Amino acid sequence: MTAADPTYGWITLTTDYGLSDGFVAACHGVIARLAPAVRVLDVTHLVPPGDIRRGSAVLAQAVPHMPPAVHVAVVDPGVGTARRGVALEAGPSVLVGPDNGLLPAAADVLGGIRRCVALGSVALGSVAPADLSWLPGPVSSTFHGRDIFAPVAAAIATGLDLAGIGPVAGPDTLVRLPDPVVVTGDDLIEAEVTMVDHFGNVQLAAPGLALAGLVGPLRVGGVPAVKGETFGDVPPGEFVVYVDSAGRVAVALNGGRAVVALALSEGDIVRITSAGE
Amino acid sequence: MTAADPTYGWITLTTDYGLSDGFVAACHGVIARLAPAVRVLDVTHLVPPGDIRRGSAVLAQAVPHMPPAVHVAVVDPGVGTARRGVALEAGPSVLVGPDNGLLPAAADVLGGIRRCVALGSVALGSVAPADLSWLPGPVSSTFHGRDIFAPVAAAIATGLDLAGIGPVAGPDTLVRLPDPVVVTGDDLIEAEVTMVDHFGNVQLAAPGLALAGLVGPLRVGGVPAVKGETFGDVPPGEFVVYVDSAGRVAVALNGGRAVVALALSEGDIVRITSAGE
Amino acid sequence: MTAADPTYGWITLTTDYGLSDGFVAACHGVIARLAPAVRVLDVTHLVPPGDIRRGSAVLAQAVPHMPPAVHVAVVDPGVGTARRGVALEAGPSVLVGPDNGLLPAAADVLGGIRRCVALGSVALGSVAPADLSWLPGPVSSTFHGRDIFAPVAAAIATGLDLAGIGPVAGPDTLVRLPDPVVVTGDDLIEAEVTMVDHFGNVQLAAPGLALAGLVGPLRVGGVPAVKGETFGDVPPGEFVVYVDSAGRVAVALNGGRAVVALALSEGDIVRITSAGE
Repeated sequence: MTAADPTYGWITLTTDYGLSDGFVAACHGVIARLAPAVRVLDVTHLVPPGDIRRGSAVLAQAVPHMPPAVHVAVVDPGVGTARRGVALEAGPSVLVGPDNGLLPAAADVLGGIRRCVALGSVALGSVAPADLSWLPGPVSSTFHGRDIFAPVAAAIATGLDLAGIGPVAGPDTLVRLPDPVVVTGDDLIEAEVTMVDHFGNVQLAAPGLALAGLVGPLRVGGVPAVKGETFGDVPPGEFVVYVDSAGRVAVALNGGRAVVALALSEGDIVRITSAGE
Repeated sequence: MTAADPTYGWITLTTDYGLSDGFVAACHGVIARLAPAVRVLDVTHLVPPGDIRRGSAVLAQAVPHMPPAVHVAVVDPGVGTARRGVALEAGPSVLVGPDNGLLPAAADVLGGIRRCVALGSVALGSVAPADLSWLPGPVSSTFHGRDIFAPVAAAIATGLDLAGIGPVAGPDTLVRLPDPVVVTGDDLIEAEVTMVDHFGNVQLAAPGLALAGLVGPLRVGGVPAVKGETFGDVPPGEFVVYVDSAGRVAVALNGGRAVVALALSEGDIVRITSAGE
Repeated sequence: MTAADPTYGWITLTTDYGLSDGFVAACHGVIARLAPAVRVLDVTHLVPPGDIRRGSAVLAQAVPHMPPAVHVAVVDPGVGTARRGVALEAGPSVLVGPDNGLLPAAADVLGGIRRCVALGSVALGSVAPADLSWLPGPVSSTFHGRDIFAPVAAAIATGLDLAGIGPVAGPDTLVRLPDPVVVTGDDLIEAEVTMVDHFGNVQLAAPGLALAGLVGPLRVGGVPAVKGETFGDVPPGEFVVYVDSAGRVAVALNGGRAVVALALSEGDIVRITSAGE
């Protein structure tokens, strides 16, 4: 393998670092120095600070569209404490980040965890310490994206096997977020809001198939809506329930922001019924 | 042609997708998978949702500074309805996006449309359907950026001729935005606000040459201003009328935001006169 | 040297251009056209408009993590006036931008200025005019990032020696920002706020070593705080004083925004003492 032929051609970054500081650039810089032939693709850096659930959902919905890659995700309010870092092989890719629930949903989407190793951390607690002395620079207590996760990703992308990173960890030892609420029945969907997008469209945890059983005019939390395929299937100012581009049931307001009109937040439970119910 | 030698070395992206979801990354990922040797340059993803006019203006002012490229633009409130997608050859580049008025201004700047083909859409209406079965994945009803426009751009960048994409469409069949209002006379400019930039500078539709006829102190909508070349040509807190970096007449407030101080919005008409008028 | 082997493999960009216009893309486009083999790394484009101090601090804290590069920085309220442009060799890299205080801190971090040349400007004032006729395009009065700094960076990255750009300028002729206030004593730090990050953490100008002398419980401007290493070293809702990832003394509020809770702004003076003081 040469510099021009890395094991993984891409590293992706998903963080809550924002775009106004130099944090994201420092991660890019570390990768540019350690793995210059690898290209970096930013998923988003605007996960709300510390919002692990949102980070998990964005990452899981992005990875199916990415080339084989080392996906680095850092939403890490426990940085520098006893929480572990982990690296997971899943499908054709590797996920690297804190063991706080951020990564497993993406691993599931990629085909499930094939192998998992623990990365050391500054305060390792009860975790067998990984040897991080091979990392190229000092490790701060508050910026593991730059000091651990990005250099580990660069090392993996340029050929380091996971065995060289840290002790094997059982996939069942990973921290996982609770499953979102989804109840489906005859003429009924009750499901948690998983994501609200830039346009104010409200995505539910329910899979698109759940919508098949609902016919005729609908009600979303008591408000009239129409089952359709896209925004323009209803007149401006009306609600449409559809299967979104991630394959989930979603609610949109043509020409407006459903999230505002329905006064919803991520995590809320939404009930969709046939209008006659 | 090899993977290292694409027909177009660059694809640019201009959208209203925002930066907080994984939408932009999904487009990047699709291109990375289909055209790994092509590089992607983001124009902006912060066009206000559905604001076709703003998207058109940003794109048209960006393309002169780009290398030959396939320019993908998606501000597409009608996604999934009968509106067509199109691909246009213009100058050394190709434009790809919805046929809703977004692309023609950029095509004009690039030298005019040489060839135009229609892309299919999920709901084709009266348009002869293009065969999209060659696209690598399923086509959602709400995310044609990821499912149609990005893969079409990747295909064009790696060598597909427009003839392979869809039926020829007459350039005169394209949806065009109305021309902005521009009236110039002796000692007078009346023109529509085309763009307000990040600094609050107000760009008018009038070409820079229109400013040549105005001499001495000016009035902008009744407010005193000075004709100058740059912000620092007037003291802090005063207005300057100048030819901006896109060659248009513009109004700035040194050290402040002209758009706020003049209470203007995009689309408003501004009147500039010599102070004695 | 070939196109595939530039003198500098990277150009970085730090500006106050924002992300909603095509300004950043125009700079990328100019570089893509002039130096296609060079890759561009965005540090940030969200420096508050005209905030030279913030731009200087972000740049200086980013450059240590970058590969050797031509670093372009543009926070330039005096664009088009008599202020000079400059190019500085510092350590393994080159800095390019306006001579308004933006660049010297980064040059210091990189190892000090080895060589400095002046770039021309539209209005050169008392500066010996550099010949900018070699630049590939016309030079606007308001967008030197696109028309001067980016093409100069592309030229340097692809092999142009600084001697070919403009007359030598003494490093002591550069505009420098005033040093921030830092007073350290037994059980005392008084220092200026240099940066507030995306998470609301408050970085002071004091070096991390200054914290060594402070023992036991602390007070930050009268409020109780604990000396620690990371956010999770204190319970949620409490303040921690720590050495941040840039090696500076900083104050955070676990689970919150210290900058809000302490009602601070960049430039304010913060006093940290042992609690008994």
